[in-house]
Amino acid sequence: MIEDKNQQRTSLSALGEFGLIGHLTRDIETSLPSTLKGIGDDGAVLDFKDKKVVVSTDLLIEGVHFDLAYMPLKHLGYKAVVVNVSDICAMNATPTQITVSIAVSNRFPVEALDELYDGIKHAAKVYGVDIVGGDTTSSQKGMILSITAIGEAEAEDITYRAGATSTDLLIVTGDVGAAYMGLQVLEREKQVFQVNPNNQPDLDPYNYLIERQLKPEARKDIKAILKALELQPTSMIDVSDGLSSEIIHLCKNSGLGASLYEEKIPVDPQLINVCEEFNIDITTVALNGGEDYELLFTIKQADYDKIKGNPNFTVIGHMTEESAGINLVTRANTQIPLKARGWNALSEGE
Amino acid sequence: MIEDKNQQRTSLSALGEFGLIGHLTRDIETSLPSTLKGIGDDGAVLDFKDKKVVVSTDLLIEGVHFDLAYMPLKHLGYKAVVVNVSDICAMNATPTQITVSIAVSNRFPVEALDELYDGIKHAAKVYGVDIVGGDTTSSQKGMILSITAIGEAEAEDITYRAGATSTDLLIVTGDVGAAYMGLQVLEREKQVFQVNPNNQPDLDPYNYLIERQLKPEARKDIKAILKALELQPTSMIDVSDGLSSEIIHLCKNSGLGASLYEEKIPVDPQLINVCEEFNIDITTVALNGGEDYELLFTIKQADYDKIKGNPNFTVIGHMTEESAGINLVTRANTQIPLKARGWNALSEGE
Repeated sequence: MIEDKNQQRTSLSALGEFGLIGHLTRDIETSLPSTLKGIGDDGAVLDFKDKKVVVSTDLLIEGVHFDLAYMPLKHLGYKAVVVNVSDICAMNATPTQITVSIAVSNRFPVEALDELYDGIKHAAKVYGVDIVGGDTTSSQKGMILSITAIGEAEAEDITYRAGATSTDLLIVTGDVGAAYMGLQVLEREKQVFQVNPNNQPDLDPYNYLIERQLKPEARKDIKAILKALELQPTSMIDVSDGLSSEIIHLCKNSGLGASLYEEKIPVDPQLINVCEEFNIDITTVALNGGEDYELLFTIKQADYDKIKGNPNFTVIGHMTEESAGINLVTRANTQIPLKARGWNALSEGE
Repeated sequence: MIEDKNQQRTSLSALGEFGLIGHLTRDIETSLPSTLKGIGDDGAVLDFKDKKVVVSTDLLIEGVHFDLAYMPLKHLGYKAVVVNVSDICAMNATPTQITVSIAVSNRFPVEALDELYDGIKHAAKVYGVDIVGGDTTSSQKGMILSITAIGEAEAEDITYRAGATSTDLLIVTGDVGAAYMGLQVLEREKQVFQVNPNNQPDLDPYNYLIERQLKPEARKDIKAILKALELQPTSMIDVSDGLSSEIIHLCKNSGLGASLYEEKIPVDPQLINVCEEFNIDITTVALNGGEDYELLFTIKQADYDKIKGNPNFTVIGHMTEESAGINLVTRANTQIPLKARGWNALSEGE
């Protein structure tokens, strides 16, 4: 396990609860004008003036959402922030603050939490959010992370899942499926490692996929790009559970159907190679993979010229009347109803 | 275990993740003008206009923070909300929204989560807060609850831990120590039950203590009472870890010392009786018990007449210069330095 690699091990009980909180948050400073008071009181105090406030929260559980056998703690901290920041971006809002709650069993030394916090602080810096509060306690088993992200937006910018109309174009940023295949590669390497711990894997052919899994990024940049294009999306969601599942969310919330064109789905060349190596269907991975943290949104057809040829965006289909259903149009030009396979955490655990 | 009493048991996997979230949140409505959008999108959207926003978060872990052997799930849900609402009240702000994240192992049927949510919804109603988001997932072991509370306040009303001056009076609402002794009674009954499951305990002599433990209340009422008295506290905190620990927090944040008078500490007559029965020192319990969720605050001496004789408040001491230290003045008129024993979750767990 990662945390056993530490040379120095300071037990959590040596610091105590208040000591640990003080230690982990000792160098956390706030920088945004909207943060009036950060860590250190019963609550943080924020000031958004006349802007609207967007709030989202996620719970990450060891053994369910992450495996410390191949997820370095620093990356875990980074990713936990990204996952939440992504939700704020998916409202077309700007992330501003996070709170970070952590529960750990005594098997983690203080140095392990330092690594985790390094990742959290690094992500906070990269995304320009202030860490304004949280809770630190013990767990009976493993590590639990709960992050709440807060953001701000002008009322007119906020984009909901509902709001698309039946002729809107369906657009996704970046590419999809890579994070899922990165996980498959890591799972395979973990098994190889268990059989032969001295094996030195060559992960170069998988670097993009692994980075997408271990160090995903939220598309905080998209809001400014859309603003510069004078483009207001009609609906928006982030791709956390898989493209298929997210399209269905947009359709259900907007009371519409959709046609998604298989040939249009953007995938990285590395994904194609590795899917062949693993003998897995690329479209299945691209549709159901999840954890890409790209943004999926709709725009009016009349706005098409604003994004035409823009490398940030791919038009992957269009919305339809609800009665037409939610379909994948394959390369062979057949229609297959989309299913929300997504990622079902509730079938796991003891 | 409580959750085994259910006649009907629907497994979580039968509903699936999205199904479960939909089921648990199906009748949640929002009522505050500051809630523009609640559950059902990537984030909630809130509007506080020119008010400041207060945010606090807590993580509650089965086996660390609660024991389902004597904590009914409905009470647990209620208490989890109260704990967070109390933090908002401790900033002299008005609680407005909460997010609720839950992780459970498969040993819990859907009906158990329904009970938990009933308690959460009831508390939300009692405290007038909207449930605007959250996360529902599986855990590897036991139940995990993470609640974030949001509140609003005019800038001039917000009261921090820092802000007291050396001549301020130290005041506590209600009484302290009862929740801790309620826990001792429940622990004893649990042991009796394990020896003899047919034993019918008479808990009447302990009803106040047990209620303080199982169904504590946050002092949302205090802000309005202070407002009506035209009284602005100079510093404030809620009593979650124990009176002693909280006094030390106020002192450290304000750069002061304090004198606490043993004879002034408000305790319920039932606490006195039960401490005698358990042969435990009342003052020790009152100082270190925790989980009372009363408010501890300081006011200027000149404001004393505003609270004199008010049954909501007890003057328990006064602040001093930092060099005088933080002391308990006993009934025998000796000074003993206060220690933050509080409650140290990090010495527990595997």
